[in-house]
Amino acid sequence: MYFKAWLDYDGELNESMKKYFSTVLSNYGSNVLSKVERQMYLHAVEEVKTAAKAFIGNKPDEYDFMISDGNLTVIKEQYDEKEDGEWEKGILLYYVPENQMDEEALITEGAYAIKRYYDEEKRLDLWTVRANSGAGILYGTFALIRQAVCEGKIADTGIVAPFHALRMLNHWDNMDGTIERGYSGNSFFFSKNQILITERTTFYARLIASVGINGVVINNVNVKDMATRLISPVYYAKLRELSKIFAGYGIKIFLSLNFAAPMELGGLSECDPLSEDVIRWWKEKMQEVYQEIPDFGGFLVKADSEGRPGPFTYGRTHAEGANMLAKEIAPYGGLIIWRCFVYNCRQDWRDKKTDRARAGYDNFMPLDGKFLDNVILQIKNGPMDFQVREPVSPLFGGLMKTNQMLEVQIAQEYTGQQRHVCYLVPMWKEVLDFHTYCKENEDTVADIISGRTFPIRNCGIAGVSNTGDDSNWTGHDLAAANLYGFGRLSFDNHLTAEEIAKEWISMTFPKKPIILSNLMYILMNSWRAYESYTSPLGIGWMVNPSYHYGPNVDGYEYDRWGTYHRADCKGIGVERSSKGTGYTLQYQKKNALMYEDVSTCPDELLLFFHRVLYTDRLKSGKTLIQHIYDSHFEGVEEVKEFIRLFCQLEEYLEEAVFQRILNRLTEQLSSAEEWRDVVNTYFHRISGIEDEKARIIY
Amino acid sequence: MYFKAWLDYDGELNESMKKYFSTVLSNYGSNVLSKVERQMYLHAVEEVKTAAKAFIGNKPDEYDFMISDGNLTVIKEQYDEKEDGEWEKGILLYYVPENQMDEEALITEGAYAIKRYYDEEKRLDLWTVRANSGAGILYGTFALIRQAVCEGKIADTGIVAPFHALRMLNHWDNMDGTIERGYSGNSFFFSKNQILITERTTFYARLIASVGINGVVINNVNVKDMATRLISPVYYAKLRELSKIFAGYGIKIFLSLNFAAPMELGGLSECDPLSEDVIRWWKEKMQEVYQEIPDFGGFLVKADSEGRPGPFTYGRTHAEGANMLAKEIAPYGGLIIWRCFVYNCRQDWRDKKTDRARAGYDNFMPLDGKFLDNVILQIKNGPMDFQVREPVSPLFGGLMKTNQMLEVQIAQEYTGQQRHVCYLVPMWKEVLDFHTYCKENEDTVADIISGRTFPIRNCGIAGVSNTGDDSNWTGHDLAAANLYGFGRLSFDNHLTAEEIAKEWISMTFPKKPIILSNLMYILMNSWRAYESYTSPLGIGWMVNPSYHYGPNVDGYEYDRWGTYHRADCKGIGVERSSKGTGYTLQYQKKNALMYEDVSTCPDELLLFFHRVLYTDRLKSGKTLIQHIYDSHFEGVEEVKEFIRLFCQLEEYLEEAVFQRILNRLTEQLSSAEEWRDVVNTYFHRISGIEDEKARIIY
Repeated sequence: MYFKAWLDYDGELNESMKKYFSTVLSNYGSNVLSKVERQMYLHAVEEVKTAAKAFIGNKPDEYDFMISDGNLTVIKEQYDEKEDGEWEKGILLYYVPENQMDEEALITEGAYAIKRYYDEEKRLDLWTVRANSGAGILYGTFALIRQAVCEGKIADTGIVAPFHALRMLNHWDNMDGTIERGYSGNSFFFSKNQILITERTTFYARLIASVGINGVVINNVNVKDMATRLISPVYYAKLRELSKIFAGYGIKIFLSLNFAAPMELGGLSECDPLSEDVIRWWKEKMQEVYQEIPDFGGFLVKADSEGRPGPFTYGRTHAEGANMLAKEIAPYGGLIIWRCFVYNCRQDWRDKKTDRARAGYDNFMPLDGKFLDNVILQIKNGPMDFQVREPVSPLFGGLMKTNQMLEVQIAQEYTGQQRHVCYLVPMWKEVLDFHTYCKENEDTVADIISGRTFPIRNCGIAGVSNTGDDSNWTGHDLAAANLYGFGRLSFDNHLTAEEIAKEWISMTFPKKPIILSNLMYILMNSWRAYESYTSPLGIGWMVNPSYHYGPNVDGYEYDRWGTYHRADCKGIGVERSSKGTGYTLQYQKKNALMYEDVSTCPDELLLFFHRVLYTDRLKSGKTLIQHIYDSHFEGVEEVKEFIRLFCQLEEYLEEAVFQRILNRLTEQLSSAEEWRDVVNTYFHRISGIEDEKARIIY
Repeated sequence: MYFKAWLDYDGELNESMKKYFSTVLSNYGSNVLSKVERQMYLHAVEEVKTAAKAFIGNKPDEYDFMISDGNLTVIKEQYDEKEDGEWEKGILLYYVPENQMDEEALITEGAYAIKRYYDEEKRLDLWTVRANSGAGILYGTFALIRQAVCEGKIADTGIVAPFHALRMLNHWDNMDGTIERGYSGNSFFFSKNQILITERTTFYARLIASVGINGVVINNVNVKDMATRLISPVYYAKLRELSKIFAGYGIKIFLSLNFAAPMELGGLSECDPLSEDVIRWWKEKMQEVYQEIPDFGGFLVKADSEGRPGPFTYGRTHAEGANMLAKEIAPYGGLIIWRCFVYNCRQDWRDKKTDRARAGYDNFMPLDGKFLDNVILQIKNGPMDFQVREPVSPLFGGLMKTNQMLEVQIAQEYTGQQRHVCYLVPMWKEVLDFHTYCKENEDTVADIISGRTFPIRNCGIAGVSNTGDDSNWTGHDLAAANLYGFGRLSFDNHLTAEEIAKEWISMTFPKKPIILSNLMYILMNSWRAYESYTSPLGIGWMVNPSYHYGPNVDGYEYDRWGTYHRADCKGIGVERSSKGTGYTLQYQKKNALMYEDVSTCPDELLLFFHRVLYTDRLKSGKTLIQHIYDSHFEGVEEVKEFIRLFCQLEEYLEEAVFQRILNRLTEQLSSAEEWRDVVNTYFHRISGIEDEKARIIY
């Protein structure tokens, strides 16, 4: 059993809108569409019907139409029999043939335009979705329904083209059905080393297509055991079936790849990317894969990272490793997405010179320009990992001749594990809007990964998925806002976090002003709240090792992961300025200067960049220690406010929904109190400095 | 494959001793022995033959003998044919019939006497083992061989009776083959929910009988899943077979019991010890168990402890719970051993009033005198858990009308997990020799658990076993000294830790003075060394949660286990005096006063009992903080010394043995350095006080 999430068109639509859903006009029959394009078109028609069923309780009338020299002809037998003065309202899906393209921009894969067609004479009042691709028709249709639901009206959109070419979800699903960093049940892709294909699979494709996703990596980046065999005859039939389902929604299937596959799968004695045997093995493997799965997108590779094999073993560079694969997959149009999460995960905590934050840049900057065109470097949004607050990776704005992709984590590994509400779109917006100063203008991360800054074609954004086989998909009902938001943002970067939240709430919950306003408050303040009761000012971590939940200030302090806070009785923080590890120097000059100087470094990243004394004053005028105390007390109060506001919604929400969310919020409160008390107690004990407000610290 | 441990009589014996092993004289044929007694006698004879084979390379001659009116007649055909002047030397095992008992004390089960029989006229020179039980014959035989090997001579012992009635090993083996807190491989009792019976089983019975063990609990005290079914027809046949094997070595088999068995196994709706249904169920179960396993010893019960079910659920006392079982097992002579490890394992770290150290006493003292005679309370050697240094539980010297058993942990859960050498006999000696002041004299723990202090009959000592299916039994070769030592000490409390170490070394390794002296140094200094580089002065813990290895000063500090150090920038320790939790008041007055006062509280337990400032001076004259720094540096130096001394033995030891032990010592050194650096860094950071000697602290 699963819920329909934001696609549960729950029937609340005003009367004037409903009329449009009484008729759907399609022309897929009259066009020469490829099988897969036709499938997308059909799914769009199906979507209108599904929405109509929900909104008006009936199937809509279905007619073909023809457009010739700009003249629309509706093809239906009883058309002339309409009574005088009666208007025909409907939704028209127009797959624009190339020879009739009136708008150049529609050429972009997935672009669409919603436009009113109003003909006084023929008494036709239609909302048209125009596109030159099946994906465009599909996206336009979802957009049209979204407008109707969220705004209560439909409006001309002009041409809407997807902002990022690649809009991907990375699933960290294991073949045994578990999910690494999964907080929503088990995998719906795998169970007991088998690939699952159920009704849920199709719904998922539809769900993520509705927000614009066009690529999905289905297996964990840590590829082991049977997952290595995904590229073997054992799984091809199922993968082909799966990729067909997703292709029908404009989504390509990707796989994570084991760099050591030539050894583990091929029986070779090495996986040196320059070995002729290895190259030959991959050549044959790529041919085989594409023979078996024609729609296949390509591979995601985690190499030389956290124990995964890679080119370093053979003294080869990451460029040599990635290019070897890229060259062999190129004939089939495939991509090699190469993760930059490479660092020394066996650091000695006593070693204060090595700085994990530097590692991505140090490893990949020297290779800028050395990658083939179908290689994409996938860069995590923070240089450390997915902490609640990190600066943007200096690889963005550093790399100028390399395809790049931003990787964010929708799964809330370090942000409350879907037991705490933490709406992440505001964080992603900050990352995307960050000026790297690598150019005069068009220098933000969003500019870079959309190909505006540098002439890179294969680029985009990837999110580590937060879904599983829980009936509500995301464990916490409110965590679905992150999945929704990730998709929407990847498609349309201009959307604000507020707009996205508002959309998602309107799509998901009954339309009551109090629901909208209270949930908006909760979502929009949730990231900041979580940040304030966990680790302060960009220092990160301070969680229990391995499962990354719950306060543990010293949890990583004496460990091998390169994640230290160095707190002592005087102060805390890692000096990453030029006086310290020199990490600041990896940024373009303007940012380097900003971070270098304590007086210009933003407070919220202060402890990421600098070692600060407890008695030093922040820009707020507070001492550091007082800020720590205050923010931890305030964060908990904010969670109480969330609960107060949420409880006001009891009468408007289904009981089960209300109870489910309330349970999570209640758990969040007790967990936040624990976080507050542990962190405050730790700093009170180590600093010996009293809280100015004399609140209880244990 | 397994090694013979200290029973590998490796042939080094002087010539005069060898002669005695040329003949063995036995009279089991002429005595009316029960089947099981006869089996023990046979095993003793077998032991002499095995030793002879090793020492002289041949089977000894075997003769019967008769003793009538004190006159010995050797029954052998060629006896008279011996040449004039030739002496007959041999070993004679004499199961003394009751009507010929010349020494009262031999009546004690397992007692024996070794005595020379020297007859000028008959030219007989024999060493005799005299006993009135099969176990006595067996123990005496092992003792005689041990004398020969260790001393190079045999001497009259007088009557040696076992010190403690119950000398038990507790195995925490799970039915799936894993061992809770096992550091020597998997279980040799269970695999995949089956009971294993192999050649190894028999050897193990012989091995532990050789040091006097007479009871073995084979399954983990946490009884779950299939282990609950050990008392069901599925396993009876195998258990019967197993108990027969052990009985042949004087060892009774016990099982850990699931208090909720009436529900989980019997399908009842409750396990209330006062419910008639529950009582009836147990009555029938006990009858069934003894019908199926006649040699069965009884049950060990962990109830209302760390999530295990128990009488508290039904508002019953532990006495009511234990007595119910005891009453039903009494007709068969069975014992109920009831663990006192009962405490709140869901404590809020913010709660400073609850003191886990108090829990055992608080829970069980009110029940003193309320337990049936076949119930034994099994009390851990520290009130917290098996830390490297704890005071003796105040239940010893508190309880005066209750059968008691001391529980120590041979498995090195908190003492280096058999990766560090840590000879524990000195610790156990301290516990056993501790004066409780519950009586004028005979007031030590050893006195209490041997029944000298109070008229208790069922009492003794239990050790959590450190064995597994590793070929050397204990993972670390040197950890076998703990198993050996536990057995020897439980049999003969008068032995010193040095004597035991010396015995074990002599039995196990080639007889070279340098081996003896260097290993003696390592063993005798190992506990102190481990203590000095881990947690200081009785504060305990400071390890990684759940697996209990490696430094983690705050590992348990904000957790639910009641194990806190409360370190802040000024000092550390839990105030357990009358000014604090009042734990000191649980001791008899003299000890209470000693612990209450910082000036009389022994330094090594200072932080267990008191909160102390870093700048306070210890009895040594050092400040607390300097002591922490010094001891951590010194501990590591001591490990280096162990390695230096051990390396001197290279030429005398088998290469594999040398390498195996050296590997462990090397690992210990790097682990000790880690411990030193983490603990010193933690305290340096939190106190801000410099090391007087300005050594490297990170």
